[in-house]
Amino acid sequence: MDIFTAIRERRSCRSFLPDPVSEDVIGKILEAAVWAPSAANNQPWEFIVITDKSVKKDISSESEKCRKVLFEKSGWKWVDKYRINFLEEAPVIIAVIGDPRKTGADMFLEGGGLAYRDGCAAAIQNLLLAARALELGTLWFTLFDRKTIRRILNLDPAKEPLALICLGKAGAAPAATPRKSAAEKTVYLR
Amino acid sequence: MDIFTAIRERRSCRSFLPDPVSEDVIGKILEAAVWAPSAANNQPWEFIVITDKSVKKDISSESEKCRKVLFEKSGWKWVDKYRINFLEEAPVIIAVIGDPRKTGADMFLEGGGLAYRDGCAAAIQNLLLAARALELGTLWFTLFDRKTIRRILNLDPAKEPLALICLGKAGAAPAATPRKSAAEKTVYLR
Repeated sequence: MDIFTAIRERRSCRSFLPDPVSEDVIGKILEAAVWAPSAANNQPWEFIVITDKSVKKDISSESEKCRKVLFEKSGWKWVDKYRINFLEEAPVIIAVIGDPRKTGADMFLEGGGLAYRDGCAAAIQNLLLAARALELGTLWFTLFDRKTIRRILNLDPAKEPLALICLGKAGAAPAATPRKSAAEKTVYLR
Repeated sequence: MDIFTAIRERRSCRSFLPDPVSEDVIGKILEAAVWAPSAANNQPWEFIVITDKSVKKDISSESEKCRKVLFEKSGWKWVDKYRINFLEEAPVIIAVIGDPRKTGADMFLEGGGLAYRDGCAAAIQNLLLAARALELGTLWFTLFDRKTIRRILNLDPAKEPLALICLGKAGAAPAATPRKSAAEKTVYLR
């Protein structure tokens, strides 16, 4: 698939069919992810591919608790109405784990030490685009409590769970969210 | 260009030819950037496209100071040897500015408030891939002092300069940096 088509047709998918995704396909998607750039080529990413139903169920019920807390704190109506069934529905969840020790020289700069996170986000974007090219739907989900996800996934406490990517055949074709054009977001210093 | 080819053939380019890049092409690349996903579709990115030679010169000389400070603090040999002439050499620098107020519900979570940065990193990855497809070289540069870049670009103090992307025709074909395979970075919970 053409790169511009993949970029324009990637959607945040919140409804999945139960069809399994082969480990060959998952491997191809993750191989695209690891070709992202990272500060000093530190490759600060790791992936946990979750198809185990009980683990998905734990993640889903804990994220539902987190959603309720978020609604109490924010009062935002969309958080109240947000249904997160996709966490159980998606045949695959890929947890993206970042290692803050694998940041770059930015650790010596004011406000630095976060380049590892940028590298992981670039890897996630590659992952989403690769999945789109292979006609799979994805969701970049982040409304979870990090301590809880650390416990469920038995993570090294030094590492950060940065995202849960739901992956599978889309159950419905999600609409594009509107965008401000690049022109509205750009200033030229000529 | 095929998405997998763009992902695999993107390189960090540190040598540029002086040929200008048309604003049409820059617009096409930035249009790809704004189709990145962001938390709550907040579109936390802005772009400053710099072709003005005196601004590039300021950025370059200040980044050179920053590099020296980084070497003093880190003692890392590669920082000592790192030549940053590409900041003046590249016909275009695109400053990517993030707005921390445009983060998502993650602002209510422990360690949260950084989703705006993830969205900007995803937009940058789109930008790099789009540039590759249009046969342009890029470098995602972050070794700068944020206060100084804020001053040079006269930024709203509430906004964060996250990256300087050098853009132009590559002066030499950069080699691929090696990667650990996805398999080495992945665990399956089946």
